[in-house]
Amino acid sequence: MRVLVTGAGGFIGQGVVNRLLSQGRHEIVATDRVQPPRAVFDNVKWMVGDIAEPDVIEGLFERPYDAILHLATVPGGAAEQDGAHAKRINIDATHQLLEHTRNKSSPPRVVFASSIAVYGDMETSLIVDDTPLSPQLVYGAHKAMTEQWIATLSRRGEMHGLSLRLPGILARPPRPSGMKSAFMSELFHAAKAGRRFVSPVSQDSTLWLMSRESAVANVMHALELDFARASPPSFAVTLPSLRVTMSDLVAQVAACCGINADFARYERDSALEAGFGRWPAQNFSRATALGFRTDGDMTQLVMQAFSTIDELECV
Amino acid sequence: MRVLVTGAGGFIGQGVVNRLLSQGRHEIVATDRVQPPRAVFDNVKWMVGDIAEPDVIEGLFERPYDAILHLATVPGGAAEQDGAHAKRINIDATHQLLEHTRNKSSPPRVVFASSIAVYGDMETSLIVDDTPLSPQLVYGAHKAMTEQWIATLSRRGEMHGLSLRLPGILARPPRPSGMKSAFMSELFHAAKAGRRFVSPVSQDSTLWLMSRESAVANVMHALELDFARASPPSFAVTLPSLRVTMSDLVAQVAACCGINADFARYERDSALEAGFGRWPAQNFSRATALGFRTDGDMTQLVMQAFSTIDELECV
Repeated sequence: MRVLVTGAGGFIGQGVVNRLLSQGRHEIVATDRVQPPRAVFDNVKWMVGDIAEPDVIEGLFERPYDAILHLATVPGGAAEQDGAHAKRINIDATHQLLEHTRNKSSPPRVVFASSIAVYGDMETSLIVDDTPLSPQLVYGAHKAMTEQWIATLSRRGEMHGLSLRLPGILARPPRPSGMKSAFMSELFHAAKAGRRFVSPVSQDSTLWLMSRESAVANVMHALELDFARASPPSFAVTLPSLRVTMSDLVAQVAACCGINADFARYERDSALEAGFGRWPAQNFSRATALGFRTDGDMTQLVMQAFSTIDELECV
Repeated sequence: MRVLVTGAGGFIGQGVVNRLLSQGRHEIVATDRVQPPRAVFDNVKWMVGDIAEPDVIEGLFERPYDAILHLATVPGGAAEQDGAHAKRINIDATHQLLEHTRNKSSPPRVVFASSIAVYGDMETSLIVDDTPLSPQLVYGAHKAMTEQWIATLSRRGEMHGLSLRLPGILARPPRPSGMKSAFMSELFHAAKAGRRFVSPVSQDSTLWLMSRESAVANVMHALELDFARASPPSFAVTLPSLRVTMSDLVAQVAACCGINADFARYERDSALEAGFGRWPAQNFSRATALGFRTDGDMTQLVMQAFSTIDELECV
């Protein structure tokens, strides 16, 4: 399969490229603004550039693809800071990418990394497959708008699109990511380094979380999914995830590191708590029936999150 | 009230500007690519230009508005022909307009002319307030995407937005409109002129229709609506409309002109029938409770449609 991965230098992107490589049967084109410093990507064609530039897009599409994994994005915090830049990447560059992708005679598979930010600050006790979207962040609105466009192009038979709404992914590298949810990963880095941690969400706040390992597995599953089963009615699924309280997560992380849970204290930031700490119960039976999976339990989730950190530190 | 009307030279735009003028208490700024040839617009500040041009937008927003009626659009047929042009107006220019409009300290009212094209080719027997959107046309997708953005900005308290999904509006002028639904209005022009009419949808096809008179009344109602009642949960309402079969519409039009209904014959175009001739039953109880209205009955609808033609011919 000839596959294009955008945002390939990112946290999930690197994992996806690795997994594609390990399958040994793909022609992989990877693009990002910078190439990650990893020698293992020898069999990948790297195209470094800004996908908002017409020349870069043209260069990527010299030949058509069987599949596009569109992960490149301006994330939540950065999009709030600079809405014009966010629109340029999240809407305009994405639109150009999809213009080059749509093909009625041979529709490619498109997997789009959306986000649970499409739900906004939900005042509901349960989110299900058909819960209407109500984004509050620029980022969430851009994801919802792109989902709508991909669904439309898919209904028209011009691509086989599937948007995956990702929850909080653990544990990201400690470098600035432009993500409002960065505190979730900082918990792991602090525990590992023996630093104290200040949580901006309260002890009983509830988070939706997934390891990078599971996120990558779900993206790969989307790539291989029988599209006839996956498509209707929305061309988008929210990935089922573990719903954990902050204090339970802290306790699990502490236990894993052999330290006392009081390394963390709580200083509630009401905006962050509203955006990330009030996720209600979830029932994504359609996504589960399609084979999308959580990390299983919190012990698994925390172990996977720590193994990601170790892996990142090895390179 | 200081009000901006975009697409003010269009079919609905002219009606809205007239109605605002008749209220005698507004400062009206009207914009379109060309100024309509109507002397009655003396008390309107006309700003002729392309709202996709940054200079034009800047010029429009020298002072803030209390309300924006955003009617300018590249319609369905034209958007299918030239997707890049449609994106430039329906997404990019609209985005710029809303960027200049959003204002947290004094959020203006925004009424956006959306379309029932957001539903696409529905395979359902009933459409209600909460029916999920599933556009099939570029135009419908652009409307759904803009609805999402306006809803997000409204949730953030940066505007009081309301998207109105308009059905087929009768009877438009006979000049080319770029609308796939132009045949509905051509029926009226043909009957009036004593020409034969070929319907591209079959006799038992079902249409959702409204007179321009009612469309303008509903836009004005949206402008004056108590926003606290109107907003949740979606910041968008589908206007209730009359659902009529093509043969009933032909019979009513013929009766109104004193001619035989066999002036019309039927040559089904499957694409047009799918887009415009299969509208199911509707139950928009939320929109009705908010005070949005149909034409009442088909006699009213047809009389209003003919009076629009007479009015247009007078100027």
